[in-house]
Parts: sequence; structure tokens; C-alpha cells
Amino acid sequence: MFAARSIAIIGASSDPAKIGGKPVMFLKEHFSGKIIPINPKREEIAGLPCKPDIGSVGEPVDAAIIALPAKFVEQSVRDCLAAGIKQIVLFSAGFGEIDAAGRAGQEKIAQLCRDAGARLLGPNSLGFINFHEGLFATFSAALDNIWPEPGSIGIASQSGAVGTYLMALMAEQGLGFSHFIATGNEADVDVADCVAWLADDENTKTIVAYLEGCRDGQRLRDALEKARRAGKPVIAIKPGATDSGQAAVQSHTGMLAGSKRVFDAVLRQCGAYSATDIEEVVDIAMACSTGKFPAAAEATIITPSGGVGIMLADECSEAGIGLPQIDAETSEKVKAILPLASTLNPIDTTAQVSADFNMFGKVMQIVMDGTQVPIHFIFMAHMGKTPSITELLIPVLEDLAGRYPDKLLVIISRASDEFRSRLMRNGFLVFEDPGRAVRAVDAMLGFARAFSRDAANPITDALPALPSLRDVTTSSEAAFRMLDDIGVASPAGGIANTSQKAEAIAERAGYPVVLKIESPDIQHKSDVGGVKVAIKDASELHDAWQEMMDAVRAAKPDADIRGCLVSAMAGSGVDTIIGLNRDPVFGHVVAVGAGGIFTELLDDVAILPAPVSPEQARAVIGSLKSRALFEGARGTKPVDLDALANTVSAVSRLATFYGDELESLEINPYRATSDGGMALDVLVVPADDH
Amino acid sequence: MFAARSIAIIGASSDPAKIGGKPVMFLKEHFSGKIIPINPKREEIAGLPCKPDIGSVGEPVDAAIIALPAKFVEQSVRDCLAAGIKQIVLFSAGFGEIDAAGRAGQEKIAQLCRDAGARLLGPNSLGFINFHEGLFATFSAALDNIWPEPGSIGIASQSGAVGTYLMALMAEQGLGFSHFIATGNEADVDVADCVAWLADDENTKTIVAYLEGCRDGQRLRDALEKARRAGKPVIAIKPGATDSGQAAVQSHTGMLAGSKRVFDAVLRQCGAYSATDIEEVVDIAMACSTGKFPAAAEATIITPSGGVGIMLADECSEAGIGLPQIDAETSEKVKAILPLASTLNPIDTTAQVSADFNMFGKVMQIVMDGTQVPIHFIFMAHMGKTPSITELLIPVLEDLAGRYPDKLLVIISRASDEFRSRLMRNGFLVFEDPGRAVRAVDAMLGFARAFSRDAANPITDALPALPSLRDVTTSSEAAFRMLDDIGVASPAGGIANTSQKAEAIAERAGYPVVLKIESPDIQHKSDVGGVKVAIKDASELHDAWQEMMDAVRAAKPDADIRGCLVSAMAGSGVDTIIGLNRDPVFGHVVAVGAGGIFTELLDDVAILPAPVSPEQARAVIGSLKSRALFEGARGTKPVDLDALANTVSAVSRLATFYGDELESLEINPYRATSDGGMALDVLVVPADDH
Repeated sequence: MFAARSIAIIGASSDPAKIGGKPVMFLKEHFSGKIIPINPKREEIAGLPCKPDIGSVGEPVDAAIIALPAKFVEQSVRDCLAAGIKQIVLFSAGFGEIDAAGRAGQEKIAQLCRDAGARLLGPNSLGFINFHEGLFATFSAALDNIWPEPGSIGIASQSGAVGTYLMALMAEQGLGFSHFIATGNEADVDVADCVAWLADDENTKTIVAYLEGCRDGQRLRDALEKARRAGKPVIAIKPGATDSGQAAVQSHTGMLAGSKRVFDAVLRQCGAYSATDIEEVVDIAMACSTGKFPAAAEATIITPSGGVGIMLADECSEAGIGLPQIDAETSEKVKAILPLASTLNPIDTTAQVSADFNMFGKVMQIVMDGTQVPIHFIFMAHMGKTPSITELLIPVLEDLAGRYPDKLLVIISRASDEFRSRLMRNGFLVFEDPGRAVRAVDAMLGFARAFSRDAANPITDALPALPSLRDVTTSSEAAFRMLDDIGVASPAGGIANTSQKAEAIAERAGYPVVLKIESPDIQHKSDVGGVKVAIKDASELHDAWQEMMDAVRAAKPDADIRGCLVSAMAGSGVDTIIGLNRDPVFGHVVAVGAGGIFTELLDDVAILPAPVSPEQARAVIGSLKSRALFEGARGTKPVDLDALANTVSAVSRLATFYGDELESLEINPYRATSDGGMALDVLVVPADDH
Repeated sequence: MFAARSIAIIGASSDPAKIGGKPVMFLKEHFSGKIIPINPKREEIAGLPCKPDIGSVGEPVDAAIIALPAKFVEQSVRDCLAAGIKQIVLFSAGFGEIDAAGRAGQEKIAQLCRDAGARLLGPNSLGFINFHEGLFATFSAALDNIWPEPGSIGIASQSGAVGTYLMALMAEQGLGFSHFIATGNEADVDVADCVAWLADDENTKTIVAYLEGCRDGQRLRDALEKARRAGKPVIAIKPGATDSGQAAVQSHTGMLAGSKRVFDAVLRQCGAYSATDIEEVVDIAMACSTGKFPAAAEATIITPSGGVGIMLADECSEAGIGLPQIDAETSEKVKAILPLASTLNPIDTTAQVSADFNMFGKVMQIVMDGTQVPIHFIFMAHMGKTPSITELLIPVLEDLAGRYPDKLLVIISRASDEFRSRLMRNGFLVFEDPGRAVRAVDAMLGFARAFSRDAANPITDALPALPSLRDVTTSSEAAFRMLDDIGVASPAGGIANTSQKAEAIAERAGYPVVLKIESPDIQHKSDVGGVKVAIKDASELHDAWQEMMDAVRAAKPDADIRGCLVSAMAGSGVDTIIGLNRDPVFGHVVAVGAGGIFTELLDDVAILPAPVSPEQARAVIGSLKSRALFEGARGTKPVDLDALANTVSAVSRLATFYGDELESLEINPYRATSDGGMALDVLVVPADDH
């Protein structure tokens, strides 16, 4: 579709203000392929011969745009398919975004296309543009006031308005584009398809994606992974992080929004950047367009203003960008020119340079020649607005860019349009705001890390044969046995159906013991008096048994009580939650975080799409705010992180074993100890629909 | 100084590139007062009669600029003072920012001025500008490429470079200025003085302050409070939040940087905004220039793009801005024009409006007429760039601005310069980025709350007579007694110097008890085996006593051991840290936060300048991330927040009682319980220098 060489416009108009008129006008001016307007009332449109219907074209056509009112669309799609057209762009609104009838109509059209082996972009799509081919299959009004140049950024957006707004702001920064694609209601082609296409497209170097929801999480993951392997950064916006935003998503789209947290976890895992603001996308796309992804998070700051030096140092520190000191020799060279300069990093030339701005150029040369860091932040204050100064400094800057083509040179300055665009052509980044500059570089560093990493560690060791999901959801003994099968220990003990048998189990397990009610009908045991801890001897055990039975029967008279689980008290450690949940978009995700009160206070649960390797699990545990707990806070012993990571990985692989029948599994708590760990409780919930 | 009507320039030059030439050139063109160039080598400069020295002017002069090399400055200051000049602006660098000799020279000049009752701006100052008087007492090169208009923003900046950079970026947004003041090394006039001046100045409506350090915290607080009472927003940047930034501050300024956290606490308490980024300052200053501080955090969002509506809803939610639904009648009116519109809030007109943009104007009118909220966010996509659309909508927008002069109308749109400046003249805010728009409005809401609040609750009830600081630092019994005197309870018990006496105290207090070593030489008792808890009876007590004495004597053979503190075990509750610390800039601050492991994990201690009222303390406890702990997390009883707030307030007032002799006091833990609370341990440290 995106490489069509002939295109029909059904509902073509000679009025360039109409949605059937705009593409004809755009294509006529820019497209070298064949343009076929279709309109039964006209013989020619914009100087092109017009056909009454798609059936009478009389030659093969690669793609058709349908720009008709909704009520005529189904017939038009049938006509296109009958004419052998395999690529359809559907501008028309009035489908899934409106009501149930619209959704049904949309699904019918999509089915017609599927049956015919055709692809469909839309409905409710603003169309697409292939800039390098001049293929303007769109009615975007944004093109009324800005005409973006061909370039290397590909945009895939569910929303035409957000997509064109992003495109226009990037174009105003001098950036160019390979494709713009608005997927609209996504009856067929979705953002994931577009990302995959752009990952393969040789004109595309940077991908910008906007999506509110996603129908097929795996396809999106595959597309993102393809882009990562191709070394193409993906900058994604997925709004709806807050309740208000989520409500607005619901009202705007019929799609499953999925959890924003899971979305972010997927993006992170696939090396994509999750952006919040429009401007952030523009900044990062601009940074990516240099193609200079720094190999290390180390920089120098060169500044004539100590104050801005401090601000940049703060921003670098927050972004984890180191500021190594320059060596003594380099420092002496700077001091030889500017005796008052501070040659710590930030390198503060002081306002001395305003006596002769050549000195500022020399300092830049000395610092870049004398250091190995891949990033240089250069604050130029008002210099970029003063022609007499830019004339002096442009040759120095261009020389440095030429000699250090791989270094990311970031100018922070007020700048004339001319100075700015000249620097950008030379691969510099130019910002006015220090914070925005550092944040864009930080995103570049994230991409550099993602590109250099291998694909996720393959998960090789298969799980053994496990009990059926039905067993593990109805018997905690079976659930613990299943955990034991996958290498997750639990305290010694067993199920007893009389207090005498409980006593025997307790003798074997060793006092003190814990008693927990065993019933497929009771999930929250402590709420019904179904948990007794620290039972010291047989006499306490018999009393506890009786009390528990009385309490539980009173609270849940109809429950099928199968006895009690008797287990040894676990040693001290860090209580952790390990969970496996099924996200409506991305399938199972595994979550790990500190348990108990910490879960509530820290809002600090790491999420990863399942399955994960132990290495991946280990990495996310290290990213938790609460990692200090695991590393031995306040004099306690550090927990066995390998055991914890192995447990998280093993739990995550249950998703593969049980598949969609498994809604969720939660080990809460998993007590992580210095020499291993134990599942103290486990709850397995089957999917409603299985 | 800032209102001088006659000004001498010592070291005047006819070369406008020199620091003695620029002010002559600027003043000649813009200042209606008297300008007196001083240069022994010239008879006239720039057409003005030139005097050889300040002594030969022969008439009173309000202010003098000194633009001489450092070595001539002291004599020049003496000459100025001898000539009766009371206002000196010192451009010259080479003083405190260089080395100890420079600091001494600077201090000498400052002393000369103090003795003569004169004020000094600088040294190392870029000077100042009073825009409304045309008084350009500066050599700023920023004025080479931008000439800001008079207006209502006053800038006070320690750094000339940061100050002019901020000014130029604001000027490029069309904002105007009352004053620009660069305080440089602040030998005398500092940013606090300037803020106080600007708070009084009738031309100034908004104050922007940049400061790296502060010599007199109380003067800054007073100045900020003066601005707050005058209803003038103060937007402050204080860099150096991170270690790297802090190191850069040290190398850039000789001033005490003070803690950034304390600085932020002071700014918050005084109703000022603490900004991080340059651009943030520009955005908020622009917002403040409308003068429309919203009375409530409620808004509508009107958008032709569902996607941007979601993004705005997310941003509003994060900023705590509510989005109330519009009423049924208003909703029906919108639907009557645009049947496909979503009239939840965001109000999504959909792209239907592109058929006739008059409809968008009508929707704005209907929504504003039908709702009471003080804030409206209006996304206009590309409309602001298309003259045919702006022509349609400007009359509607101007009518709305006229009819609702108090509403904050925020346009988010790509905009032509003309559309943008026309809207700004009509009191609209105009942004391209949704996030920046909402964050600027959020800052406005913060100012609105600060302006409407009374001055901090007066602290009326005096503390009773308390033991001397010496007593409370050497005896924990005295320290606990002192706490008891100010209404902070501690467990029953007392000091015993034999195990027999300990037994008697334990009998009175009631078992179980805690035993803690009592020695003025031991601060960290548990490190030396000096704490035993949960002692159940007399026999355990005697054993514990002996073990403790052996352990402590082994660990600290020279310690003066006065016995043990015996106290009853406290009931369960939430362990809290309450601390009082002396900040080098702002004096004592009181801190409160969850204790134990939470202190380490949550990094969640609230800080307030001491003293505080119980109401203030209560408010910051409510702002803690860990407030859920105090409010009864996981089924525990909520703690007595009034008792906790009273304790924090009482502790804070110790700062007033003991003054600078008190370095710090820490109650750790204070066990907050459902019916009160108790100090379980207290450590009082006197100041080194007292």
C-alpha cells in the first residue's frame, strides 16, 4: 500500500477543500505514479481523466482511496475487491468510533477485505503519505500551512490529529519524513503493522508511534523488537496513564486500552522510549536524527556561565550522565588562554571570553581534543544570535564536527534560524533549554543501550509436567506441590483433615507451626479466622484447630472445608509479592515487589512481559525503589537474589505452560531469605472464560 | 539606586564594545536623567561632557557605575564616597569569585560603603536596568540582539548570564520588564534586597529570582513573604540539587549554598515557586503576566482531537485539576451543532469542525457560557496557523475574553506570530505543548493558594522554662524531662545506677521493660551493646544489667557510665522521626517522617522552617508519601495525628528557646499511637561553636 505506483480516489472532487479533493491536488503535484479520480458526475478532475466507477478503470490499480459518506462505503469496498484492488485506504468516518452499528459495519468491511486477501487502512483514517515517492494519500489540513520535506522519520499514529500535530512541529524544527500513516479505527492495518513496515523501510531511521490501545500485543512486541534489531529508535506515546486520561480513552476509542504500566513495561523491554509530551517526542526525534547514539554516559560541559553550568550538572546527574574531570594537561591548556577559567567539569570559561570569542572556540577545541567522552554540552548563551560571533565560531564548530563525527555535540544557545539550521546540518543538536537538551541525550543513551543488547535471553529449560490447572486452583497442597516442581520451596508440612493428623504433621515439620484453613471456597483465609500462627506445641495446636473450625464454620457455613494446612514457621527474611497476571493486550506479565506494607506505600512493583529469564528478573529487582530491602537494609543480611530471580523466572514460565486458562497466580508472601526463599502462600485463579 | 535620576560612569569609554562604553551608549539613548561620563583622558564621550574624576563633577550625583580594572576599584570607591555618592554599581570582576585576596578586597570595599551609609551592587555585577526609566546601568551584551520592552516582570539574578538568558527568552515571547538586576558577588545588595524592592515597586507584577546561595536566610524569607502579601508571584531557580550540581556551585561561588531541600521548603512556605528549568520559568512568567490566578482547580478541555484530549486529561489529573462534566443542557446545545461530539469533559468536537470552523467557535461559546470553571484549555491543532480560520475565530475569542475577563483561557495550538501575539494581548495563554500548558496553569494555582492564605499561623503559646541545653545534652533523663515539660510523653521509668534500683524502677513502670545505657560519652547505644529490650522479670533484668555493663565497658572502657535508663515497653504504633536541625542559611528546620526502614526506603521526610504551628505540621504530615502509615494502613488503627502535629510543633519551638546553641535534636523513634505517642529515644547535640 505504502509503495503503490497507481492509486484511485473514489469520491474524487475538484474542490481542494473537500476530503476527496485534497489527495487529488496533492498527488497531482507530487506523485509520479498513476492517479485515477473516480466520480460518476465528472469527466475530468484537476486535468486528469475521471472514471465513473472503479470497475471501468480497465487496468490494474495498486491502491484505492475511498472518500465517500459512510453509507456508500460497503458497496464501494465490494466494487474495489471485485476490480482486484488489494490495498484500500478508507477516509470515511461514521464507523466503530460512533456506535455498535458502526462497529458492525466496520467489521463487515474488514471481513470482506480479509476474505479477498486485501489490506485496509482505516476507516476514520487521515490516510498516509510516502514522502520519498510523493504519494500523498491523505486529506490532512495540516498540509495547508506546512509542507514537510522528505527525510528519515516515520510516523505511525492512530490519531490523525495527534500525528499531524507531531509532524508539523517536527517539520518546523527542520526535520524530514519518510512516511506519515494514520491508522484510524484499525479495522485491519494497525500501528504495529506500520512500525514493522517502517523498521524494514530503508528511508526510515527513526520511528514515532502514537497509540491509545492495541488489539494484538504480541504483534506490537514483534514490531518493536524488529525495529530494535534494525537499530531504529521507536519513540512512542500511549496516553491514558491517569484515571481521567483512561476515561477519555474509553470515550474516544472502542479499543482495549490495556494497562499503561504494562504498556510501559513492554516498551522498555523492547527498547522503545515511552514519551508523555508532544514536545518530548519532537526533541528526541530531533536528537535521533543525528544518528549519534553515545556509547557511554559521560560528558563535558563547556560554559561561559557558571550558573548554567550548575544547572547542566544537576540535569546530567539526574540522568545518570557522568562528568569526568579533564586531565591536568588539558586543564593547563585551557588556563593558558583563560587564567580565570574553572577547569573542573563543568568547564567554566567565565565571561572573560566576551572580550574575544575566539577564546571560546579554542577552549572547545582543547577540551574535545583532550578528552574521550562521547558527549559535549556547550552553552553559548546569546552567541548564536550575534552574526559577528557566529561567523567566528562556525568554522571552529564545523571543524570539530568533521573531526569527531561520532561525538554528540549539543549546543545550548539562543540561535538565529540560520545558525541553528547550519549546525543541525552538521549533526549538532541545538536547544535553548538546558534541561530539554539533557533529557533528549538521556533518551539517546537509552536507545544506545537497547541497540547494543542481545535479544532477551532465550528461555531454554522447559518446565516439567505439572498438575492440571484445575488441581492447583482447588487445593493449596497441589499448588504448593506445583511450585515445588518448578523449584520454588515452601515450608515443610501438609494437609490434615483431623487435629490428630495435624499433630503428626506438626511433629514431622517441627514446632512452631502455622495452621491455615484448606477450602476451595475460601480465598482470603485470615478474614474468616482461618489462619493461626506461632503454634508452639500439640496442646496449642488442638485448641487452635477447634477455634479455627468454629470460626470458619460460623463465617462460611456452606464452605467445603477439607481440613487445614499445617506448616513450619518460616525464618526471617523479606516478604515479597510475586504475581502473574493476564493483561488484556499483552497477555501474561510477571510482577515482583516488596510485600506487606511496602506494596501499599511504595507503589513499587516491577512488571515484565512473561516469560522472563532469571537475568531479566534480576535486572528488574535491581531497579526497584525497595531494592535496599533485598540488599540488606539496616544491618540485616542481604537476601539470595539469585534464588529470588529464579523464582520470578519460574513463575513467569507458568504462563507458557498453562496459557490463557490461567488468569492469575500470586505468591504473597514469598519470603526471600539469605539462603533461598519460600512461598508462604499462593493463590491461583483460572480465567473466567476457560 | 534603581530610581537614580543622575548617574556617573567611572571608566567611561566611547567604544560601545567596552564595559565602560555600553552603559554610556544605552543611557544616552534611553535615559532622561543626567549622564556623567568620567575619564581623565577624554573631554567628551558620545557627545556628553566628560569629567576627569568624580570629585570634579561639582554637583550631587545619585549613583555611580565603576567600570575599572580591579586594582583601581578601591580608590574609586573612596573617591565616590568622598563625593557624597550613596549608590555604587561595581561592574569590575576579580574579587570574591577569584581567591581569598579577592574576597578580602571585596569585603574592604563593602566595609567602606557600610561606614559611609552607601549601598553597593556587585562587584562582578552585570549591573541593572530600570526599564520604565530607561536607566540602563549595565554592559550586557544580550542587548546587542534583543531590546526588551518595559513591562511588569522584575528579574533579580546572582548570575548576569543566567539573568540575561532568562530575560532574552522571555522577551522573545513578547514579555516586558520592570527591572533587571544582577547582584554578582553580593558584597552588599543581594537577591533578597532586590525581591523586597520589586515587591514594593508598582511597575512590577511578577518576580523572577535566580540564586545559587544566600547569606541571610531570614532576609530572603521576609522578602518572599512581602511579595506574597503583595500578591506578586515569585518564580525562583536555585540550582545545585544534585551532588554534581552542588560541586559546581562550590566551584562557582564563595557563598554558603545551604541545602536545596531546605531552600525548597522555605520557598514553598513563602508561597514562591521553585523552578528547575529555564523554560519552566519563561512559561510560568508568561502565565503570571495574565494576572489571572484561578480561584479553583477546575477546568474544561475543548478539543477537535480525542487524542490530545486524553493527553490533556492525563496532565490535568497529575496536576490535580478536576474536569467536572458539563451539564445536560449545555451538552445538548453542543450536540445540536455537532451530533458526533463527545460531551464528557474533554469535550471532543471531533474533526467534524473542519467542515466549518464556525462550529468550533460556537462550541467554545456554549461551553464557556454553560460552565462556571475558571480555566478552559482549548486545543486548536493547526488552526492558529491558517489565516482563513484565525479570521473566523479571533472575533469569537476576543468576545469571550471580554465577557469572561477573570477566566484563564489557555490555547494550545500551532500559531502564527500574529495570532499568538493578538491572543496574548487579550489575556490568553498560548502554548504548543499540552504538558507545558497544564504545568504553567498548575503553577498559577499554587500562587492563587499562596496569595489567599493568611500569614503563617502565629505561634502564641510560649514554652515553659526548660532545663539548660547543657543538662539535656548530657543526661537522657534530663532530655526526657525537657520533652515532658513541652508536652511530649515518654515511657514510665527512670535512671538507675545499680541493678537493685533498676529493679525498683521496673516494678513501678511495669514489665516488660527496656534497659538503655546512660552515659554522656555514648550516643549510639546499640552499637556498644547498650540496649536490651523485652525484659520480662527481675531475674532477666539482673542478667541483662550485668551483660550490658560488661559489653559497654569492653567496648568503651573510658566512658563515664552513669547507670541505665529503665523504661516500660511502649505499645504498638508507627515509629516516626522528628528532628530539628540548624541549616547554615535558614537556621533551624524541623523534619518529620516515618522512621526505621521507611526513612531509608522512602526518602520521605518533610521539612519546615522552625518554628511551626500544629496546623502547619499537620499539613506537611498529610503531604508525606508515607501518610498511609499514619492513617492506618493494612487494618491498623490510625494514629493520633493531632498529638503528632503538636509534638512536631513543640519540638520546632525549641529552636526559639535554645537558639543557635542547639545544633540538632532528634527523637528517633517517636512512637505515634492511636491515642497519643511517646518519645522512645532522644538525642540532643549542642552547636560546635557554642
